[in-house]
Amino acid sequence: MNILIKNADILPLTGEGGPLENAEVAVENSVIRYIGRVPKDFTAEKVIDAKGGILMPGLIDAHTHVAMSLLRNYADDLPLMEWLRTRVWPVEEKLVREDVYWGSLLGAAELIKSGVTCFSDMYFFMEETARAVEEAGIRAVLARGLVDSDGSGDSRIEEAKNLYESWHNGAGGRIRVMVGPHAPYTCSPEYLARAIELAKGLGVGIHIHVSESAYEVEESFKKYGKSPVRHLHDLGMFDVPTVAAHCVHLSDEDVDILAENSVAAVYNPTSNLKLANGFAPVKKMQEKGIHVALGTDGPSSNNNLNMFEEIHLAAIINKGVNHDATSVPAFAAVKMATVNGAKALGMDKEIGSIEIGKKADLIIIDTNKPHFCPKHSIVSAMAYSAQAADVKTVIVNGEIVMEDYEIKTIDIERIMFEAERAARGLAKR
Amino acid sequence: MNILIKNADILPLTGEGGPLENAEVAVENSVIRYIGRVPKDFTAEKVIDAKGGILMPGLIDAHTHVAMSLLRNYADDLPLMEWLRTRVWPVEEKLVREDVYWGSLLGAAELIKSGVTCFSDMYFFMEETARAVEEAGIRAVLARGLVDSDGSGDSRIEEAKNLYESWHNGAGGRIRVMVGPHAPYTCSPEYLARAIELAKGLGVGIHIHVSESAYEVEESFKKYGKSPVRHLHDLGMFDVPTVAAHCVHLSDEDVDILAENSVAAVYNPTSNLKLANGFAPVKKMQEKGIHVALGTDGPSSNNNLNMFEEIHLAAIINKGVNHDATSVPAFAAVKMATVNGAKALGMDKEIGSIEIGKKADLIIIDTNKPHFCPKHSIVSAMAYSAQAADVKTVIVNGEIVMEDYEIKTIDIERIMFEAERAARGLAKR
Repeated sequence: MNILIKNADILPLTGEGGPLENAEVAVENSVIRYIGRVPKDFTAEKVIDAKGGILMPGLIDAHTHVAMSLLRNYADDLPLMEWLRTRVWPVEEKLVREDVYWGSLLGAAELIKSGVTCFSDMYFFMEETARAVEEAGIRAVLARGLVDSDGSGDSRIEEAKNLYESWHNGAGGRIRVMVGPHAPYTCSPEYLARAIELAKGLGVGIHIHVSESAYEVEESFKKYGKSPVRHLHDLGMFDVPTVAAHCVHLSDEDVDILAENSVAAVYNPTSNLKLANGFAPVKKMQEKGIHVALGTDGPSSNNNLNMFEEIHLAAIINKGVNHDATSVPAFAAVKMATVNGAKALGMDKEIGSIEIGKKADLIIIDTNKPHFCPKHSIVSAMAYSAQAADVKTVIVNGEIVMEDYEIKTIDIERIMFEAERAARGLAKR
Repeated sequence: MNILIKNADILPLTGEGGPLENAEVAVENSVIRYIGRVPKDFTAEKVIDAKGGILMPGLIDAHTHVAMSLLRNYADDLPLMEWLRTRVWPVEEKLVREDVYWGSLLGAAELIKSGVTCFSDMYFFMEETARAVEEAGIRAVLARGLVDSDGSGDSRIEEAKNLYESWHNGAGGRIRVMVGPHAPYTCSPEYLARAIELAKGLGVGIHIHVSESAYEVEESFKKYGKSPVRHLHDLGMFDVPTVAAHCVHLSDEDVDILAENSVAAVYNPTSNLKLANGFAPVKKMQEKGIHVALGTDGPSSNNNLNMFEEIHLAAIINKGVNHDATSVPAFAAVKMATVNGAKALGMDKEIGSIEIGKKADLIIIDTNKPHFCPKHSIVSAMAYSAQAADVKTVIVNGEIVMEDYEIKTIDIERIMFEAERAARGLAKR
């Protein structure tokens, strides 16, 4: 679609670049064609007046499990392993294909409403999530979660292959597929080796949970005599582009290994705090040159898909932890949720900033509200004042997915009804 | 006003009481008259259908400086003392009476939109804040900030007396006045003693900053050979009901002193993290029986007045700090922002929960949104999923202040225009 966006204050997220005031952006088909001044002869099918708003790149949620929205507010205030073993896993065993479809649509709706234009997900029945992504008009990187500790390792590898065959570059190029070994503590070394081979064979990256809890690290030392990071490295995983979610309990050596191998770390502040896993060493990772991305994790350990909360947390928590009020300044926090997310997913040539030639994944924040007044700094406002509900308009791949707070692609009322029904059914099954 | 609220899921915040489903509440004049079933002969001037919403007590922001909204996003990513000395104080010297009026109205508008029905404030030109409170229809506890380190101690004491004379129990009983010595590091011991005498004489409480930064504690030991808490205690301050904001750097002895003297502590998680002051010992304070309340602090160190963010932070941060996912569960976090706030301000007989005979300070949260679906736990939803922007309707003292997201009492567009103009003027002055 050809779209002209007028009267926007633009936060392009390029370099250390500040905002462009009162500018225009033109979108041609799926791509950003002009920024600043648009030639008079540009023919727009749609003109959006962004007056009083900020135009910025869509946010990237680099680690989540959107279908877990069905378990939102279902089990809280419990430690990670107890939460997984006594609450989450027993319910997940009962999940059927259709549940994942409705849960994924619910998650997609919430992500769009929160200004997220691309998310990276690992779960099961992933074809259902792919269908939801196709219908919702959002962008996603999907991985079938691979686990062999329960004896179903082979069939899952098959499912991962099928997901790739059916959906890689699908939905008009909005879907990519990765290989998703769940974690070093749920996959044997042999199985991890198979996942690595699969990723190499398909030419795609790996998405994995790494060093989320202290318990996991202890177990790794007991079983393998080394940390989860060192273990994965020794298995050759990092020869493949790897997205390592969580990275909370890292030694200095672990950080060095991740940095030297250009492993992308995804920071999930809400989830890490809520499950009492602790504080990821963001400063240390950044100092070693790791581009830390941001994620919500699943909505059952969060309990929402609100990337503005994660940006806010990234900006304030590290100041407290490092006793340094200059740590993770506003611009760095917003970068985590945009540019760094794109880098983590190997898509920084395509998305993550507003640049000519990049995909038009754009959001408009409505700043005509008391909590944005007065307008001293747009960047500070995005990190410290904004709420997800301030997102007014969302464009993905050059298509308008939400306009004036209304989602255009999917029927939210129907989705909430079906998701509620799925959750009730699940409880009775 | 007589109001009937129908079809509400009620979170009364009484005891450990769970929600009441599909219930009614009747408000007669300024007071809650019926809960659950309302007699058929109750005559309502106004009926509110709360279907799909949660009715809960209005939130209480127990420590803020609302007029500092003019400095929102003006100076960020700086340490406390540098931020105060090089950025905040120089601008504050230029503030005129009218700035504080518009800043206070801007703050009141944001608070109402965020579901806050009562706030506790310390600043200067407080008659202007009182005027704003009267016009906005919100409830407030106001204190003239007292400082003698700049030689203006006497006139400030006079202003505090005048504020009491003019506004205590003013605005239809919505305003109370406290005495507000700024902090042990900006007030001499003699001046603190005068503030204590003034509070005793007027029969009101004290609102003061206590042990916000490590620097402040070090200085106290250098100057007085004891901690700020011990110093205030030895001066006799805690004979007066005292609201101690921040309480970040407390020794075990400090916690004991606060507990033994029933001092109310106000936790300001965003501000404490953003200014790199650290993590208040919430668990320790709670274990000793201190009812910890919550506050936003001023919007220039936050940078908003969003109590839902503070609830969220209170619930998740303490889990991370204490390595305990059961620390500050959802219900405890919501209590901090309601019941405990009322206790801190000495108003728990009047506000803080939904009980017959209490003042009708009520809010309705619109949960017909993807991030509240499915509806597993209302309490978890309030702590972990909600945003300030979900507040749909606000009642203060039995009057409808906001209905269907629209503030009824004040003109937001005009306020934002004037606040923006005041901020620009300030920068040029």
